Amino acid sequence: MTEQKPLTRPAAKLTHAGALVALAAAVARAEEMGVPQNISIVDDGGNLLAFVRMDGAKLLSRETSLSKAISAASHRQPTSRLDPALELKLAIASGGRLTNLEGGFPIIIDGVCVGGIGVGSGKGSEDVDVAKAALAALGAQI
Amino acid sequence: MTEQKPLTRPAAKLTHAGALVALAAAVARAEEMGVPQNISIVDDGGNLLAFVRMDGAKLLSRETSLSKAISAASHRQPTSRLDPALELKLAIASGGRLTNLEGGFPIIIDGVCVGGIGVGSGKGSEDVDVAKAALAALGAQI
Amino acid sequence: MTEQKPLTRPAAKLTHAGALVALAAAVARAEEMGVPQNISIVDDGGNLLAFVRMDGAKLLSRETSLSKAISAASHRQPTSRLDPALELKLAIASGGRLTNLEGGFPIIIDGVCVGGIGVGSGKGSEDVDVAKAALAALGAQI
Amino acid sequence: MTEQKPLTRPAAKLTHAGALVALAAAVARAEEMGVPQNISIVDDGGNLLAFVRMDGAKLLSRETSLSKAISAASHRQPTSRLDPALELKLAIASGGRLTNLEGGFPIIIDGVCVGGIGVGSGKGSEDVDVAKAALAALGAQI
Repeated sequence: MTEQKPLTRPAAKLTHAGALVALAAAVARAEEMGVPQNISIVDDGGNLLAFVRMDGAKLLSRETSLSKAISAASHRQPTSRLDPALELKLAIASGGRLTNLEGGFPIIIDGVCVGGIGVGSGKGSEDVDVAKAALAALGAQI
Repeated sequence: MTEQKPLTRPAAKLTHAGALVALAAAVARAEEMGVPQNISIVDDGGNLLAFVRMDGAKLLSRETSLSKAISAASHRQPTSRLDPALELKLAIASGGRLTNLEGGFPIIIDGVCVGGIGVGSGKGSEDVDVAKAALAALGAQI
Repeated sequence: MTEQKPLTRPAAKLTHAGALVALAAAVARAEEMGVPQNISIVDDGGNLLAFVRMDGAKLLSRETSLSKAISAASHRQPTSRLDPALELKLAIASGGRLTNLEGGFPIIIDGVCVGGIGVGSGKGSEDVDVAKAALAALGAQI
Repeated sequence: MTEQKPLTRPAAKLTHAGALVALAAAVARAEEMGVPQNISIVDDGGNLLAFVRMDGAKLLSRETSLSKAISAASHRQPTSRLDPALELKLAIASGGRLTNLEGGFPIIIDGVCVGGIGVGSGKGSEDVDVAKAALAALGAQI
């Protein structure tokens, strides 16, 4: 007699209330730093949950902020941890989405990855700083 | 004192074991009918979980089966329930993905929508028949 | 003696503070109605300024909300005012972006169109209702 | 008297039954290793025949697994055999599909290449291991 494997498994989702808390904290930190940013928040399926482009932020960094958020959610680790010898091959083979640029973090709450945040328009370290402010506001793992 | 809204909400995911059970049931039914099919199963974020194209199935129906699966998961209802007066506008405005073709069903288990299935290559009624066989194998809502 | 035509002309832009005010008002109204929505706010260049997808909103309506916002900003009028005899031809010839679905409005402040808002996931009239709440919060023309 | 060249040539195709055997063997091996994977199987035209994303596999590795499968089927050799000095130029010039990442193998049965398999989400050596388990189940050349 064979044992059937479970057809579903429990999961968790970031609420829109949570996404807006993260967005507001990121904007507040970026304003404090005087560095306008694009901030993308995605769910664990890589679909956009919330976004803002701040006054003066670089237009094309919207797309990089999204790639950072999706990459972090996909791999459940901060961007910039891929093997540098592979990063360009992975970027290209994934259709351009998988990035190793600094500024993307998984959103891990109570041990579950519920999505990712990506910040782009500043220097790498500034993007990281703003993303971490958002994670802190959520009480997420940093 | 304000009450904080929850940052996360509980959810469920279809396992790959579940997706493969659905795929096998769909293939068995299509073989029984003698109608080769493309069968796409996506999660609730519209991302592909499992797929098969059967011998002799129409090549381009792979894409329609995927659109059906994503549409059903997105709207949590079978395809073909959109207002006919709006369906083409919705299809175009959604970048082509939102379809009203028959053959897409949400996968609802224990009252939770965990994804969608789309079947394409036969007549509409044949596609529906095969999708329903997959849902039945999962004990999902039909 | 010929008079040179001016080389630049004055303009106005919606700030991220303004976009977030609109987003919050739209979310509040949608919560009040019990209808989860996708809300897209774009600048006058059709580029996304702010976005949120509410818990339970239809996934594919993200793209339709964006098409509505871009269409309204482009034409500086609410969506659903195109000639029905032309709407599908216009939609296709514009690469899919120009939509006549209800729920898109230009954001006109002090007589200047600074962008557009698009709402999608509810019925047309619900989408319109939420978009108008956002415009009201901005003191924009309705 | 001139001899006419043949107008057609014999070929062979992987059946969906064969593709599902390969998929099941790959899943079984990945489960044994405790490394969830994306597994893509394509025909000799690079068109998807079968796919599964296992619980916990990286989302973006779906696309890399597909690129590996198509690359292997196209070149009728394992990925990672391109000249490293050319690999990025080839990747870009092929629209991103041709990859040199480890984990892609042609499916060669009775000396005929009938498609390719690509595995992605683990380390390169883990991806290779899973792909070889699928080839072994098919009695294909390794």
